[in-house]
Amino acid sequence: MAVKAQVLYSFTAEPGNNELSVQEGETLTLLNQSVGGGWIEAQNSRGQTGLVPEDYIQGVNGSDAWEAHSTENCDSTQQQALAYQGSIDDDEWDDESDDGKSTGGYTWSQSEEGGGTMQRGTGHHTMKISLNKVFSKTPNPEVFLLTKHMVKENDRLPIYMGEVGPVWLYPQTQLDCVVADPKKGTKMYGLKSYIEYQITPNSTNRPVNHRYKHFDWLYERLMEKFGCAFPIPCLPDKQVTGRFEDEFIKMRMERLQGWMSRLCRHPVVANSEVFQLFLTYTDEKDWKIGKRKAEKDETVGVMVFTTMDPEIRELDPTEVEQKCETFSRFTRSMDDRVKDLLSVGHLHWKRCTGPLQKEYQRIGKAFQNLSSVFNTSGYQGEATLTEALTATGKTYEEIAEICAGQPKKDLHFLMETNSEYKGLLGCFPDIIGVHKAAIEKVKEADRLVAMNKIGPQDKHTMAKNLSTMSYALQAEMNHFHSNRIYDYNRVMQLYLQEQVQFYETIVGKLKQALSQYTTF
Amino acid sequence: MAVKAQVLYSFTAEPGNNELSVQEGETLTLLNQSVGGGWIEAQNSRGQTGLVPEDYIQGVNGSDAWEAHSTENCDSTQQQALAYQGSIDDDEWDDESDDGKSTGGYTWSQSEEGGGTMQRGTGHHTMKISLNKVFSKTPNPEVFLLTKHMVKENDRLPIYMGEVGPVWLYPQTQLDCVVADPKKGTKMYGLKSYIEYQITPNSTNRPVNHRYKHFDWLYERLMEKFGCAFPIPCLPDKQVTGRFEDEFIKMRMERLQGWMSRLCRHPVVANSEVFQLFLTYTDEKDWKIGKRKAEKDETVGVMVFTTMDPEIRELDPTEVEQKCETFSRFTRSMDDRVKDLLSVGHLHWKRCTGPLQKEYQRIGKAFQNLSSVFNTSGYQGEATLTEALTATGKTYEEIAEICAGQPKKDLHFLMETNSEYKGLLGCFPDIIGVHKAAIEKVKEADRLVAMNKIGPQDKHTMAKNLSTMSYALQAEMNHFHSNRIYDYNRVMQLYLQEQVQFYETIVGKLKQALSQYTTF
Repeated sequence: MAVKAQVLYSFTAEPGNNELSVQEGETLTLLNQSVGGGWIEAQNSRGQTGLVPEDYIQGVNGSDAWEAHSTENCDSTQQQALAYQGSIDDDEWDDESDDGKSTGGYTWSQSEEGGGTMQRGTGHHTMKISLNKVFSKTPNPEVFLLTKHMVKENDRLPIYMGEVGPVWLYPQTQLDCVVADPKKGTKMYGLKSYIEYQITPNSTNRPVNHRYKHFDWLYERLMEKFGCAFPIPCLPDKQVTGRFEDEFIKMRMERLQGWMSRLCRHPVVANSEVFQLFLTYTDEKDWKIGKRKAEKDETVGVMVFTTMDPEIRELDPTEVEQKCETFSRFTRSMDDRVKDLLSVGHLHWKRCTGPLQKEYQRIGKAFQNLSSVFNTSGYQGEATLTEALTATGKTYEEIAEICAGQPKKDLHFLMETNSEYKGLLGCFPDIIGVHKAAIEKVKEADRLVAMNKIGPQDKHTMAKNLSTMSYALQAEMNHFHSNRIYDYNRVMQLYLQEQVQFYETIVGKLKQALSQYTTF
Repeated sequence: MAVKAQVLYSFTAEPGNNELSVQEGETLTLLNQSVGGGWIEAQNSRGQTGLVPEDYIQGVNGSDAWEAHSTENCDSTQQQALAYQGSIDDDEWDDESDDGKSTGGYTWSQSEEGGGTMQRGTGHHTMKISLNKVFSKTPNPEVFLLTKHMVKENDRLPIYMGEVGPVWLYPQTQLDCVVADPKKGTKMYGLKSYIEYQITPNSTNRPVNHRYKHFDWLYERLMEKFGCAFPIPCLPDKQVTGRFEDEFIKMRMERLQGWMSRLCRHPVVANSEVFQLFLTYTDEKDWKIGKRKAEKDETVGVMVFTTMDPEIRELDPTEVEQKCETFSRFTRSMDDRVKDLLSVGHLHWKRCTGPLQKEYQRIGKAFQNLSSVFNTSGYQGEATLTEALTATGKTYEEIAEICAGQPKKDLHFLMETNSEYKGLLGCFPDIIGVHKAAIEKVKEADRLVAMNKIGPQDKHTMAKNLSTMSYALQAEMNHFHSNRIYDYNRVMQLYLQEQVQFYETIVGKLKQALSQYTTF
């Protein structure tokens, strides 16, 4: 089967170099991916063939970690088919078909819009299943709204009035954990292999081991239980980002760490039984019992609101609606801006590792070539200039490499953070959808009372429960804002610090080159 | 008539912005050049229309000074038609049709290869005329080779053995001059206007005035007199580089200054009667008499070698040939490398003022937009982050402008110097051609003696004269090398200094932005 790829960045062939000019967005057929030196032989739709830089093509070079990340999202309607096949992995749920044997190979395939060439192996789409289980489109909040709940003290999730408004109860010591030490394990007499990560929470300081499929299981449970109330961050994609196992494992671990840390920071999630089980189970038996219990948990979906207990005056539905509108507007706008930033960053990454690197290389080469000619003049007193010119040329070649390597040092983290937020923000339409459906139900209450479908007391219960939902949303938004400010403040500083260092490095190198010239 | 332009740099349209994707090298028809904001409305060969950044197109934006310069060369077969018409100028030789009236307008026209749309006004091509007058293809050195010359002491151009080999006699004080104070003059009761420059040599410290056509006249005389022996730098092109008069005049003055300074540095040219006349004529009458005398000078073309007097042992023809080969190889190689550097610089200039500027603007905008959304959160304690993010965004917008403005500060001078050298190197094929023709003649001498076409004494004279030519070429090459080392040393330092300052400015700005974030 012909391998297709899409052109990410327009490229103009240099005459006489067997290069192929391509336009952004064009689809190419890959003829030879093992040309080497960063080149791929490809054919365009007009039948012309030639070499194209592999960095300019999507579906070929997977070394840009954030790129695959940027195609990752929790939106099940948008499955991008960058499939990793036959690698060391354990995506399947069924224990019996658990682990694909490592072949070290990989396949990229680009699904055309509406096309049927999508390859996702046998892994199911977790999010889709969770949604199907819990919601039918927007989950119906009615069952919760009519509940006269008495919260069991153990399950109780208090909401307090803090300085910034309603807030969850935050623990004295914040939970965190370290994900480390990925180890290859085998089963079925070595026929199947998998990676096991070690997770050490700061609460017990005792490591537990988990495979990717356990993270996936946890994600599913959290979506089921809290998906109506909190944005549950997407699990790092199964889709691969690097062509080398080590790189892939490292990147997945980095992202699992980010995922776990974010969940640890959420006071409700962190304190939940299922999350605690994941972090602190003592042995295989403990784990299995805990798993079965969690899967039987009935306080899931909209019913999670029954455990929430705002110790604040009840809000009237108008206030609830106003708050909801504010959050809806904010999350939608932020989602747009985050996507903009990701797309700008994407382009910038491509520029740095593509045309800009090439250009500085050319500048460096041009200076060195001039120096070589000067060297042949036979004129005495030439040496200082030719040496300085050569050094300048080499400096620009170094700058080319620094440029190309820079995105991994700064843009990477900016992209990772924004990708995480894109994932979180993608959860809000559902959360706000449930909330709005509840508001509509409460608006209908008078009519329902008149029709004798509910009693007057039920109407009061509904309003009270809506108020609870609203406090939960407010507490969640305050949690989101506080984390957002922390995260962006941190990542922007990191970005700027690395940018400063980048330019300072260049300054240092240029000064060094400059010092080699004769001063008259 | 439809105005055509060529695409310098591939550009990918953003969807929904009425932009047009174009490929480097593509020819466009310009539909509307006054769209504003750096955009031009254009149509491609497939009939698609849309907006294209004007910086991406050649023949539209003339503000890149070096670009017109880079099309300038002394090769009359390569007349690039970027014609400036109807401006304040005085290109014509005939005094009666001297000055075009200023209209302030200009026309760019791009001549297709072999096409006939070239517009050069009524100005003739100086170089062509000079060559036709003096040479027929390669000037025949025979007339000089057979001359038993007795150098008149006044005209005598001694060649000494210096540390680096044969050298011209350099004066104690190097001549230099300042070209300044361009003034608009009028004639014919104000119907015609011209620009007069003031030239002040350091020898007399007394300013003289000259119009462009006088420089042109001087160039023609120098080509006639010295063109067989020295590379006479091209006169700054008549072709315009800026769309505004002031910019054009400033650029021309800068280049006339460079041209004069280079001639002043040449000991033979600087000391020549015609050059001295140009710099030190006392009044209109003096100028007119001097002009007439110079035009009647018969020691021109190959006969200039009759004035050269090497005070060194005679070289045998084999040595002459070896030297000539060395210089031929060097000048050809350097010509290639200089052209490479110009083309790399050209691309880099376009990158800085085009895609790179745009990209930093987008990055800046993305940060600012994110900040604007954050600002609407209603969450307290937001201000520090939003202010810092806005500042960061503005910083990247500033970096965009710094990037776009940088080539004028550093690349410009590198390009100007290389353009000058491209012009000089373009003269060597003719100089070396005359030299090689002389070598061939001397090789034939034995046969000519046998055929009784020349006497044995003539053969001796020819060998002696060839030796003189060789010393002249060697002295000239040594002059060239010494100037080259000086020029490149200077321009590279300037380039690197400005590059260092550029990156340091960015570091400063980024540090400033960084300092606005909260440190936890």
